[in-house]
Amino acid sequence: MTRVIAVGGSDAGISAALRALELDPASEVTVVVADAYPNFSICGIPYYISGEVAPWTSLAHRTAADLAATGMDVRVDTRATRIDPAGKQLTVQGADGRSEELAYDALVVGTGAVSVRPPIDGLADLRPEQGVHLLHSMGDTFGLQRSIEERQPASAVIIGAGYIGLEMAEALTMRGISVTQIEALPEVLPTVDAELGSLVRDELVEHGVEVLTGTTVKAVSREADDRLRVEATGADGDTVTRLVDLVLVVVGVRPDTALAAEAGAELGFRGAIAVDEWMRTSLPGVYAAGDCVVTHHRLLGTTWLPLGTTAHKQGRVAGENALGGDRRFAGSLGTQVVKVFDLVAARTGLREHEALAAERGWTPVTTASAPDDHKAYYPGATPIAARITGDSGSGLLLGAQLVGRRTAEISKRVDTYATALFHGMSVDGVSDLDLSYTPPLGSPWDAVQAAAQAWSREHG
Amino acid sequence: MTRVIAVGGSDAGISAALRALELDPASEVTVVVADAYPNFSICGIPYYISGEVAPWTSLAHRTAADLAATGMDVRVDTRATRIDPAGKQLTVQGADGRSEELAYDALVVGTGAVSVRPPIDGLADLRPEQGVHLLHSMGDTFGLQRSIEERQPASAVIIGAGYIGLEMAEALTMRGISVTQIEALPEVLPTVDAELGSLVRDELVEHGVEVLTGTTVKAVSREADDRLRVEATGADGDTVTRLVDLVLVVVGVRPDTALAAEAGAELGFRGAIAVDEWMRTSLPGVYAAGDCVVTHHRLLGTTWLPLGTTAHKQGRVAGENALGGDRRFAGSLGTQVVKVFDLVAARTGLREHEALAAERGWTPVTTASAPDDHKAYYPGATPIAARITGDSGSGLLLGAQLVGRRTAEISKRVDTYATALFHGMSVDGVSDLDLSYTPPLGSPWDAVQAAAQAWSREHG
Repeated sequence: MTRVIAVGGSDAGISAALRALELDPASEVTVVVADAYPNFSICGIPYYISGEVAPWTSLAHRTAADLAATGMDVRVDTRATRIDPAGKQLTVQGADGRSEELAYDALVVGTGAVSVRPPIDGLADLRPEQGVHLLHSMGDTFGLQRSIEERQPASAVIIGAGYIGLEMAEALTMRGISVTQIEALPEVLPTVDAELGSLVRDELVEHGVEVLTGTTVKAVSREADDRLRVEATGADGDTVTRLVDLVLVVVGVRPDTALAAEAGAELGFRGAIAVDEWMRTSLPGVYAAGDCVVTHHRLLGTTWLPLGTTAHKQGRVAGENALGGDRRFAGSLGTQVVKVFDLVAARTGLREHEALAAERGWTPVTTASAPDDHKAYYPGATPIAARITGDSGSGLLLGAQLVGRRTAEISKRVDTYATALFHGMSVDGVSDLDLSYTPPLGSPWDAVQAAAQAWSREHG
Repeated sequence: MTRVIAVGGSDAGISAALRALELDPASEVTVVVADAYPNFSICGIPYYISGEVAPWTSLAHRTAADLAATGMDVRVDTRATRIDPAGKQLTVQGADGRSEELAYDALVVGTGAVSVRPPIDGLADLRPEQGVHLLHSMGDTFGLQRSIEERQPASAVIIGAGYIGLEMAEALTMRGISVTQIEALPEVLPTVDAELGSLVRDELVEHGVEVLTGTTVKAVSREADDRLRVEATGADGDTVTRLVDLVLVVVGVRPDTALAAEAGAELGFRGAIAVDEWMRTSLPGVYAAGDCVVTHHRLLGTTWLPLGTTAHKQGRVAGENALGGDRRFAGSLGTQVVKVFDLVAARTGLREHEALAAERGWTPVTTASAPDDHKAYYPGATPIAARITGDSGSGLLLGAQLVGRRTAEISKRVDTYATALFHGMSVDGVSDLDLSYTPPLGSPWDAVQAAAQAWSREHG
């Protein structure tokens, strides 16, 4: 009987535990969870704040009872404080402060990531009680919800315009709060090309969000009337000031590696825990998965690209290998999607500058096109803003970015590219795929293929 | 300067002509079109009849002016009557009855398919003027539209419940016509498993369509009051009679091969024109593409599976090779989708009995599951009825069928399976794909992967 301990109750840890029990129901699986919220979908937090999801418990992928029914022992409010890799023991500390040693045969570290707190004057001293919030955990979520209920904010500044920042702009707008979104980079959603980010900006503006890009927040301070003053330097160098009731800081995360690092685990890219494709750390018997580890990318090699989908896959691999399996993580393509009001933006693979940085000898070139999501004669057709990146030398498909209306099935269209990229297809080869067609939902050459053909006409 | 003639103004012929001109704008390309409607989207006919598309000219993929601008010479109302492969001449007959010889270097036959007229008593004597219609061409469409306008039918029988039959049930219902749909096979949409066809039946019934399956129409006759009597044998052997104002017969098509066959071209599966993967017929210099040719299928070998998407691809290959190219048609997977009211049904690859018939040594087994289209906590989640077929011996993915609500992005999800099938993935391997996720549009394991995992749990 194998004893497996997973540290962390989010995607990676729970996926590892589930997989171990799926493969060997007789294994003894313990999950150590620092807070009281195992297996919560933190990607769903914006929809709880917006009011679309209630009660908060429905954000759980599985309830405590569901988890118990799988046979795993979930220890909530329990912090893992030390790994003894030689003795194969994990020290944990319960809510009562008492420490305990747990023996394991295999350990899976899934400690995740923590919010980055940017170097903004005054930020370190401000707390949720004053209306200043980070947002990554369920604890953060409850703090924000309490703030909204108690402060009844009329206005908010969101610092950051990545996935969570954009989703929160929508969520707070839905709550009737006037939002100013501040992004230091030149365009919102910097994970896609600016030509597409600008479409997302238009969508925000159309829904009443004030968008300030190229704008760096310098200071946040509390006024006498309890309001919050946000001071920033705008794109033109001028000082921009906003007085608001709520400040949300969502500028990204960094890997939470303390537990593994203190036990001597090697760290890698961006300080994340180094793992191989079997999710093995440098410590014998210790696996790691999720946001805390480096990411094997099919096109880039080793990088750090924390995503819930990847954490699920890595956790599953770690859980299988913890039982002596030989499963490899097949690698990420950085496939991502976000819905912002009625717009959907998605990407997979590499953008031009990323492909250049990969130093694989590619000459990446990008072609923009705007194929309709379905036959124009059928009501409701809308153009999809597509950007296809390929290697002009070999014709290899390197990446795809799509932005379109919610009805345009953007997310699943990017999945077709992701599957093509997984198999190393050429841009030209995409036209060989036998994709589905009916006039209300597509075209005889699907938009996916039309965009690829536009690339080939320019670079083929 | 290469002279290319394409016979047929539908998907295959026009695709061939477009591709030839794209690759060599100096080539001399003529398209011979039997009727007056080149490059029409016949898949869009139901949406013209329903009233969703108007005017009928918007059904054209490209207008006459668009086609002329490409440099092709489109000869409408011109029938190709004879191929002289030795002399490389095509005889055509214009609207005025006069014949002409056209010389070519390469000929592409894209004569398409014609409606099957089933052996039903009385059917041969009834015409559109009496309210009895076949439906495949634009000419058929105008006849039906005229019938609806002049007869103002209150009721109709549709014989056949395949793609067009189902779309027409929706279209006539939208026109306020009470529809009885009669299908000889045990379930509607016989191209998917009956478990999924029954969901389509429910959708039809919910929208007021009377559905009679296992019911074979024996006779259609005209009553004294100009109404139409449809007599059929029901599933229980009893006679079923319906008196209606309109009868639509949509039981399928057969390849239109007369032109090529008379010139000596070999015929193959189901009597379709035999072509290799370069779309070459047995006649030198004569290519053929679209509904009139046999279909190379990636899993089945040579079959006959006429689809607009395939005709586009084959036409493009033929056009390229007509100019001396060396392009292979990569093969069909039979990927198909239909929208019926608010439901979408799609499939790709093989069903169990088809995989058995392929005689490739597979042991095909199918697993049904019902993953949500997106996270259940986000409003509007609906289950997708999924059926995954794989080879229990090797684990190879063989096919996928999905039925779900229109919002569930069924069509593009089937495209992910189609791309996986194209690359010969295992069912298990589908979980390795890096697919996109955001709670309003998916799950960390997309429904595509959840359905594959359900198969693996049963058969892996």
